[in-house]
Amino acid sequence: MRRRSATPLWRNRPIMAVLVVTAVIALVAAACTPGGGGGDNGATGSYVDIINERGFTDEQVAAALKTYLPSGEWDEYVMFASGGHSGQVIAIGIPSMRILKNIGVFTPEPWQGWGYGNVEQQAVFDAGNVRGNEIRWGDTHHPALSETEGDYDGKLLFINDKANARVALIDLRDWETKQIVKNPVSIVDHGGTFVTPNTEYVIEGGQYANPLGWDYAPLEEYEAKYRGMVTFWKVDRDKARIDESRSFALELPPYWQDLCDSGKKVSEGWIFCNSFNVEMARGKVTDGADFEAGASAGENDYLHVIDLKKAEALYEAGKTTEVDGFPIIPLQTLIDEGVLYFIPEPKSPHGADVTPGGEYIVVSGKLDPHVTIYSFDKIQKAIADKNWEPDRYGVPVLDFDAVKEAQVEVGLGPLHTQFDDKGYAYTSIFLDSVVSRWSLGPPYKEGDEAWKLVGRIPINYNVGHIAAAEGDTVSPDGNYLVSLNKWSIDRFLPPGPLLPQNLQLIDIDQPPINPTVDVGGTDPNGMQLLYDMPLALGEPHYAQIIKADKLEANTFEIYPEIGWDPAKMAVDPDAPVAGNERVERNGNTVEIWMTAIRSHYTPDRIDVKKGDHVIWHITNIDLSKDATHGFALPGYNVTLSLEPGETTTIEFDATESGTFPFYCTEFCSALHLEMAGYFLVEP
Amino acid sequence: MRRRSATPLWRNRPIMAVLVVTAVIALVAAACTPGGGGGDNGATGSYVDIINERGFTDEQVAAALKTYLPSGEWDEYVMFASGGHSGQVIAIGIPSMRILKNIGVFTPEPWQGWGYGNVEQQAVFDAGNVRGNEIRWGDTHHPALSETEGDYDGKLLFINDKANARVALIDLRDWETKQIVKNPVSIVDHGGTFVTPNTEYVIEGGQYANPLGWDYAPLEEYEAKYRGMVTFWKVDRDKARIDESRSFALELPPYWQDLCDSGKKVSEGWIFCNSFNVEMARGKVTDGADFEAGASAGENDYLHVIDLKKAEALYEAGKTTEVDGFPIIPLQTLIDEGVLYFIPEPKSPHGADVTPGGEYIVVSGKLDPHVTIYSFDKIQKAIADKNWEPDRYGVPVLDFDAVKEAQVEVGLGPLHTQFDDKGYAYTSIFLDSVVSRWSLGPPYKEGDEAWKLVGRIPINYNVGHIAAAEGDTVSPDGNYLVSLNKWSIDRFLPPGPLLPQNLQLIDIDQPPINPTVDVGGTDPNGMQLLYDMPLALGEPHYAQIIKADKLEANTFEIYPEIGWDPAKMAVDPDAPVAGNERVERNGNTVEIWMTAIRSHYTPDRIDVKKGDHVIWHITNIDLSKDATHGFALPGYNVTLSLEPGETTTIEFDATESGTFPFYCTEFCSALHLEMAGYFLVEP
Repeated sequence: MRRRSATPLWRNRPIMAVLVVTAVIALVAAACTPGGGGGDNGATGSYVDIINERGFTDEQVAAALKTYLPSGEWDEYVMFASGGHSGQVIAIGIPSMRILKNIGVFTPEPWQGWGYGNVEQQAVFDAGNVRGNEIRWGDTHHPALSETEGDYDGKLLFINDKANARVALIDLRDWETKQIVKNPVSIVDHGGTFVTPNTEYVIEGGQYANPLGWDYAPLEEYEAKYRGMVTFWKVDRDKARIDESRSFALELPPYWQDLCDSGKKVSEGWIFCNSFNVEMARGKVTDGADFEAGASAGENDYLHVIDLKKAEALYEAGKTTEVDGFPIIPLQTLIDEGVLYFIPEPKSPHGADVTPGGEYIVVSGKLDPHVTIYSFDKIQKAIADKNWEPDRYGVPVLDFDAVKEAQVEVGLGPLHTQFDDKGYAYTSIFLDSVVSRWSLGPPYKEGDEAWKLVGRIPINYNVGHIAAAEGDTVSPDGNYLVSLNKWSIDRFLPPGPLLPQNLQLIDIDQPPINPTVDVGGTDPNGMQLLYDMPLALGEPHYAQIIKADKLEANTFEIYPEIGWDPAKMAVDPDAPVAGNERVERNGNTVEIWMTAIRSHYTPDRIDVKKGDHVIWHITNIDLSKDATHGFALPGYNVTLSLEPGETTTIEFDATESGTFPFYCTEFCSALHLEMAGYFLVEP
Repeated sequence: MRRRSATPLWRNRPIMAVLVVTAVIALVAAACTPGGGGGDNGATGSYVDIINERGFTDEQVAAALKTYLPSGEWDEYVMFASGGHSGQVIAIGIPSMRILKNIGVFTPEPWQGWGYGNVEQQAVFDAGNVRGNEIRWGDTHHPALSETEGDYDGKLLFINDKANARVALIDLRDWETKQIVKNPVSIVDHGGTFVTPNTEYVIEGGQYANPLGWDYAPLEEYEAKYRGMVTFWKVDRDKARIDESRSFALELPPYWQDLCDSGKKVSEGWIFCNSFNVEMARGKVTDGADFEAGASAGENDYLHVIDLKKAEALYEAGKTTEVDGFPIIPLQTLIDEGVLYFIPEPKSPHGADVTPGGEYIVVSGKLDPHVTIYSFDKIQKAIADKNWEPDRYGVPVLDFDAVKEAQVEVGLGPLHTQFDDKGYAYTSIFLDSVVSRWSLGPPYKEGDEAWKLVGRIPINYNVGHIAAAEGDTVSPDGNYLVSLNKWSIDRFLPPGPLLPQNLQLIDIDQPPINPTVDVGGTDPNGMQLLYDMPLALGEPHYAQIIKADKLEANTFEIYPEIGWDPAKMAVDPDAPVAGNERVERNGNTVEIWMTAIRSHYTPDRIDVKKGDHVIWHITNIDLSKDATHGFALPGYNVTLSLEPGETTTIEFDATESGTFPFYCTEFCSALHLEMAGYFLVEP
């Protein structure tokens, strides 16, 4: 039934050199005969007229065609972007830049029935409460797709909440959030989530330091009492859950940990996190200088180099202390046992990115125009040689020159680096508002082609992170890169004073026209801007792009059986099914087993008395794809989305007497409006 | 600085007949010379190659080009779509189909800081509580742009919440929600919002009947105690608010009111609402038949015809009863005073749409393949002639044949009708999954060209409402129509079992190729499908499309002055500004005046004691466009979005002791991560 395209043919085209010749032939053959390059087709007119009348350049026409999907064609990739302080995850098709789903995570979202009555979802939210306070939003930062052997496997997605130091797990069978865990050590995080190459762990790093367990301590006691952290959450792949009982954290100095990446292949088992505010600035009120000045005063911050295997062994050997019952390996133990090393990095970095083969770690200091590349081999040698000096807490600081492989000048305000399949790296440049393409060294590029800046494409404006297709796996795809620009300014009609972000799609399929010289200015040198997408429902911070066919292979189009409980990912044996619908009263508790099918609920009338406790099970017994039914209960803040086969339970006290019509919120059939019933609460 | 296009030139093209001839010339002239129809341009290859390799038809190429906006070009129209049970309003640019803003309305939304601490926003939400119950979602249905002389004026937007019978007001200066009112008569609504031609009133119609004030009454007392309603909310244009003290409702029979429209021009002052379940079906438990069967048993439902001027006079004369202090004109008074009439309409209608000049009212019975067109003149004559029979409640039912002007067979499951600038109407056809174009009669079309079905374009799938550019004003624009399809099935990569809607953009600029014959099957006859947009953050129910330049003229790009309070739309004289930042303690109350600017807060450290009451004012003193700052307070469920110039106040008790770093959630500068501070709560 479905009419989707295979991988677009034009992606498989031979190299451009051949096309340059064939283009003219194709042009003459196709465009100069009717039906090819824009003949009259009656209803729509000639597309050549449109090109001429709108003044499109050839590049713009190509961009329009590369991003256009005729009805029924599917996208080649899906980008999972954090929603920033929307608290959600936004799934975007690439190259069309159409939103496929705004996934409810830390913020209740009624369209998908996320957090509006379902008792199991309530438990997920409550697990994310902070010392009993209901937190009903998040600042999602870094989505991490689960990996197998360093490649995305399309099974799970993790995301952190910077604002409250929490991590959520989304199951990509149904694209729904299944779990939220609260970090017991810190009240804010940043450097997460990132996974190890087989998703043994999902990593959450801290940011603004606080005393362990965010206990009170005045800023005057910063050096002694404030601490940073990295937490290793153990993933149980069989259960598709984080196993809190097998997770642990590292106590770190109160340098503000920022972004992490896992080692890969040759560096598997090691973790790299950058940091800023090694200066331990405490702000203007305390120190007389704003954080922005104080935290940028020094020349260097520290890349944290962590031996995860050793840390895991220490945790398993019980060499931990506890905060709120959560095990922490003390800083001194990390030093004594050779788990933690520092490397000087240009100040105020943002991004620590490991090359596909694991050989190098790329760091960008926002206030330095270079990317700095460290060699994993050299790091190992410096450790073996004890080529270090201790920092103020005694952590070994490896010698910069001994571990540095290269530096490439890429522009003002470099932030974050991604990789392609042709040996190039891409770094976002915040202040210059460009994305720079540069070449890696051996084994990716040799001789004249190594460590060169080979392109700078302007973006609009102020790029934060970037995401390339499978761009932080062991086998990047190239093809596309998305520039997640923080400001849009004049790009779109302003929807009031709060402007959208601008996600710009860039074609990186074409290698540099000249690969051996450092470009200057803003020469894209083969890269092409394809599309501007306003993002006005969140502030995406970071994103990952996965090949769509990996998701397709794993995604439920409907739930496998009638009575499926998405929280347990199994059939609920007590779920209402056709024929067993009923209402039972037991004292003051009224329990309802209801089914929904186009276009009615059974039963369609519920009588209770004020004060009754109501337990209400509903199953959507429609198994047609897309036959979702809603359930809205007016006056009670209840709304559900029941996908085909799904069963759900709500539970509440009938505190208000009256007449409450309930109804289906999804336009499910021509008689959808008749899909209703009455909940009658007798005084 | 901004580089936006004027109205695209190609929209001004001469009629197609001329282009058919010129196309071939243009083709040869442009496409057969380098740079015209796809010459080699180095980086991107030839676009003709892309066309050939992807197998695009000429129509698809034209569609791609018509919907593509190069970076910096702005959309021609904005569609405000309800978000359905997301509770929000989604603003979408047309023709690009890019989302410009997901406007927080009934559901808290942290990206825009909507409902997460701001005390004035909290008051807006609380005004929408239902008898003290906090309702934090909505089922938004029908957005209504404010009108002046029957044309959108781009100033205000109204939207109803079907699930709890509420109406919200959005100010289009800053695209933010300013007010929520709860209907005191009903617990659910549907037929709203719709405005009168000068926005004197915003209209909210009921849906599922309930006793007035949704008091308890068993369904056995349905005929005697259950009632329908239409509410007229008075709009104070000067204050940009609904004035609850000057609003009133009509008591109607318990027929499920559905959609309303205001009369226009010749019919101004009259209101038309359809209804279903005139059968008064009460469901299977009560009657033995499901609502879907019971409510469809009869041949007809009733179009409600309301004389608003008379109703207003009765309200002003105090001829009302009250529910919860809210005035209601009793049903018997409506009958006695000639305010309310019924007209039989084909059963289960959805949509009552008044033609641009006000001459006709178009109704679609979902179970009848025709649209039925009533003449306003004939309705007036039937009323004058007393050509009626009373219904069971005594309401005059006008003679169908006396008021009917025409019926046009448009397909199975007609729902909703919009209009263009060329005398055509467009009706969504749910069961056939098409949009039908048909011609109006005089004065729009005469003779052979009147009342003809002139096109049927297939859509994918199951269209609910449709929206044409300014399509329900006195002067529709034509150009574009959006089909809001409820099912997408196979159109997009499935993001789990909950599928997006499919909003399809249709080019209606081209008149019918043959305007005088009734088409059969699925002959678009000049209409063209341009774009499929998955909508996966809500279930848009209804939408209106406004010319973008009307919004531009009215929208704040930044707030007018530093210290602007968006709730009052005025400067707050007590707002923090540069130089007066401070912290004051008064007993157990700590009050803070803080400013935010790239890249720090002043002050950046706040010390309080556990149990203190905290009042915290923050002003964004950055006046650069797009220089929004966020404010996240971890652990306290507080997040704000401070647009340039905005001031905001939060208020809470410091119930938790500890160390809480606060920080900016908007990536505002290269040193954005350093924009932070500490909130220290001493035990």
